[in-house]
Amino acid sequence: MTDEKVTISKGLEGIFIADTTLCKIDGTNGKLWYRGYPIEVLADKSNYEEVAFLLLYGHLPNRHEMDVFDARLKDEREVSSEIKEIIKMYSGKAHPNDVLRTCVSALSTYDDDMSDRSKEANLERAVKLIAKLPTIIAMIGRTMRGKGFVEPDRSLSHSSNFLYMLTGKRPDKESAKLIDLMFILHAEHGSNASTFSTLVTGSTLADTYSAVVAGIATLRGPLHGGADEAALNMMKAIGEPDNTEKYIEDALAGKQRIMGFGHRVYKAYDPRAKVVYKYLQSFMKTTTDPQIEKLLEIAIRAEKLMEEKLSKTKGIWPNIDFFSGPLYTAMDIPSDLFTPIFAASRMAGWTAHLFEYWENNRLFRPLDNYVGKLDVEYVPIDKRQ
Amino acid sequence: MTDEKVTISKGLEGIFIADTTLCKIDGTNGKLWYRGYPIEVLADKSNYEEVAFLLLYGHLPNRHEMDVFDARLKDEREVSSEIKEIIKMYSGKAHPNDVLRTCVSALSTYDDDMSDRSKEANLERAVKLIAKLPTIIAMIGRTMRGKGFVEPDRSLSHSSNFLYMLTGKRPDKESAKLIDLMFILHAEHGSNASTFSTLVTGSTLADTYSAVVAGIATLRGPLHGGADEAALNMMKAIGEPDNTEKYIEDALAGKQRIMGFGHRVYKAYDPRAKVVYKYLQSFMKTTTDPQIEKLLEIAIRAEKLMEEKLSKTKGIWPNIDFFSGPLYTAMDIPSDLFTPIFAASRMAGWTAHLFEYWENNRLFRPLDNYVGKLDVEYVPIDKRQ
Ligand SMILES: CC(C)(COP(=O)(O)OP(=O)(O)OC[C@H]1O[C@@H](n2cnc3c(N)ncnc32)[C@H](O)[C@@H]1OP(=O)(O)O)[C@@H](O)C(=O)NCCC(=O)NCCS
Ligand SMILES: CC(C)(COP(=O)(O)OP(=O)(O)OC[C@H]1O[C@@H](n2cnc3c(N)ncnc32)[C@H](O)[C@@H]1OP(=O)(O)O)[C@@H](O)C(=O)NCCC(=O)NCCS
Repeated sequence: MTDEKVTISKGLEGIFIADTTLCKIDGTNGKLWYRGYPIEVLADKSNYEEVAFLLLYGHLPNRHEMDVFDARLKDEREVSSEIKEIIKMYSGKAHPNDVLRTCVSALSTYDDDMSDRSKEANLERAVKLIAKLPTIIAMIGRTMRGKGFVEPDRSLSHSSNFLYMLTGKRPDKESAKLIDLMFILHAEHGSNASTFSTLVTGSTLADTYSAVVAGIATLRGPLHGGADEAALNMMKAIGEPDNTEKYIEDALAGKQRIMGFGHRVYKAYDPRAKVVYKYLQSFMKTTTDPQIEKLLEIAIRAEKLMEEKLSKTKGIWPNIDFFSGPLYTAMDIPSDLFTPIFAASRMAGWTAHLFEYWENNRLFRPLDNYVGKLDVEYVPIDKRQ
Repeated sequence: MTDEKVTISKGLEGIFIADTTLCKIDGTNGKLWYRGYPIEVLADKSNYEEVAFLLLYGHLPNRHEMDVFDARLKDEREVSSEIKEIIKMYSGKAHPNDVLRTCVSALSTYDDDMSDRSKEANLERAVKLIAKLPTIIAMIGRTMRGKGFVEPDRSLSHSSNFLYMLTGKRPDKESAKLIDLMFILHAEHGSNASTFSTLVTGSTLADTYSAVVAGIATLRGPLHGGADEAALNMMKAIGEPDNTEKYIEDALAGKQRIMGFGHRVYKAYDPRAKVVYKYLQSFMKTTTDPQIEKLLEIAIRAEKLMEEKLSKTKGIWPNIDFFSGPLYTAMDIPSDLFTPIFAASRMAGWTAHLFEYWENNRLFRPLDNYVGKLDVEYVPIDKRQ
């Protein structure tokens, strides 16, 4: 019983937790900037290495800075034999995101000096984490399918090397652009749940590894990083393009939540979804695989219908996760790797936010409102009902 | 640049996130209840198994319920050979809390059906987690010191069995009471950082394992679960009881934060610290080990001085972590296990809060306030300064 009147900030909607120079989301107009650069410009002209540098260091790298950063990322792609052991023990038995979480948790073992909390040492940790995640994920993906590891290739960019380690094939130009685009678009997004979780953990002055392990854990849920896998599962369940409208009308009538739609901040079309949608449409024209064609058609028809049913009436617009699944599928990426790939990309945003928050740290410690009884009598066990 | 005026809720101070029937903290008067039972009563009359049941099920168990719950905990103490493998690979190389985090992350592999999100299935997960953590921690502790594993003993209670698995000796009555007391006092504490972190992760509808892994990660920081280890390190640095006053006066003059003091919610003596302090004083009378005697004397003299310097003037009172270290040391528990033991005990509170939150779930997604530039021009790399 409490006598004060309290207001519950359910889901922390509308609560500001910190100043940031990392990311601006204009939810009303559906616009997004990383460090002041419009997302469309970065998607068009930049690459993931540049974007990661931008997020971590605050400015786009010049040629020399880029060369150094890129070389460091390439140096750090390998993982230890113990990590490979964990991957072999668990891949195929646990969800890939769980295996990734376990491996990243183990990475703190290889830190040179955990007590060094300097900005420099932390940036070095971010480089290692960004470099190693794609390797771990590709190894998990291959082990699950009974294939051997493919070692990283220094001649390939960050995202192309990931696709190569996963599929064993060096990607063509189109796939290389597409996977890089997905990495760019997922790199950062303000105080979303997994980034916020990273900050909550970091706010106890726990180390970088602890903080990003919390981020990976948080990404797992279908309301967040798991949404693209869930959206794709829906499209697969629809099966035939002509079933699309009926399936969705039934789902909405049954008050089901459509994964890949809706957002706490965007009350407009997610600008990242727009970029992906554009690529999806052009992919639609070039693909020769009838299964992929079907999937893309379902996605496009579903979007159209939901725009009428959800977006215009209820302000629930597509988010990036709606279109990611079909695109990843077209690139031959299995759906259980979507969340881990999201983690690999968001690692840049997580660490950048964490280091920014530490400049002006305060422990996150909200309140909850007790609504139970007080001073209940302790009855000895044999007298309890 | 943003044109709206925003208020930053730094550290989420004063923000309520949910209703709860788990725990009431009266910060002004220094009082604490678990499900309405005063902490002093539980510390005196109850035991950890009962308290865990109380937190998870909402009422104290009758004899039959207790027997069933206790048997389930005992059934689930063992861990798999893969977990033992991870412990062997990493103990002594990473902090024990990191090894624990890695092991608990791997536990999702052994779940019967991760898609089952029923309350029943989740309670079963909580039982497994509560049962296995002490085993994992004891194995880590022994491996670090070059000793072999001690398998669990069904004839011992939850906390006594932990001490046994760690030391290889069945605890005497006094130690058994003391370790159980520590487990009870750490089991739950409202929306503290690690519990909050568990909820943030869970709010994406991620699974129980993901959520508690985030909790373990969050506990790692010296502002939270790491505080007792840090407080003990200070006492060890003081070395001789007669150095106590000078050491602390210097630290305070140097604006150092004294670990084990201060709390976001308590502006009075932490009632848990009072309970521990009482035991510490009686221990002081019985101990025959001069090293332990010194440590306890330092703790007692430090508390006295700080009460004058910090508590009465600035409202910064001792919290439970100040006295935990000396007591654990008296029980022969190494200081790097303090945080993992906290995790083992808090597992009950984490899972109970998580399941309560899921009854009325909403994604945690706060805002951050962008204070950077917008629409920065993208300059090609070779033209950058
Ligand atoms: C992202 C999300 C969690 C944001 O949720 P939120 O801000 O907490 O919004 P709420 O859950 O309070 O929902 C508000 C209303 O919109 C509805 N709604 C939200 N998302 C919806 C969706 N995807 N499909 C159908 N209805 C939806 C809710 O049912 C609720 O309706 P009501 O007021 O009639 O009950 C939510 O939109 C969602 O669950 N989307 C699907 C998962 C997803 O795509 N996540 C990835 C985000 S990048
Ligand atoms: C627990 C804790 C993080 C709560 O912090 P908080 O509510 O965010 O409080 P703040 O950090 O804003 O501190 C408020 C003021 O008290 C001071 N303060 C807080 N804890 C202090 C401590 N342990 N020693 C000395 N000064 C302390 C701060 O320096 C600050 O002073 P200022 O206003 O002059 O700058 C904080 O008290 C602390 O760091 N304690 C030590 C770690 C610890 O024991 N944690 C376990 C808690 S169970």
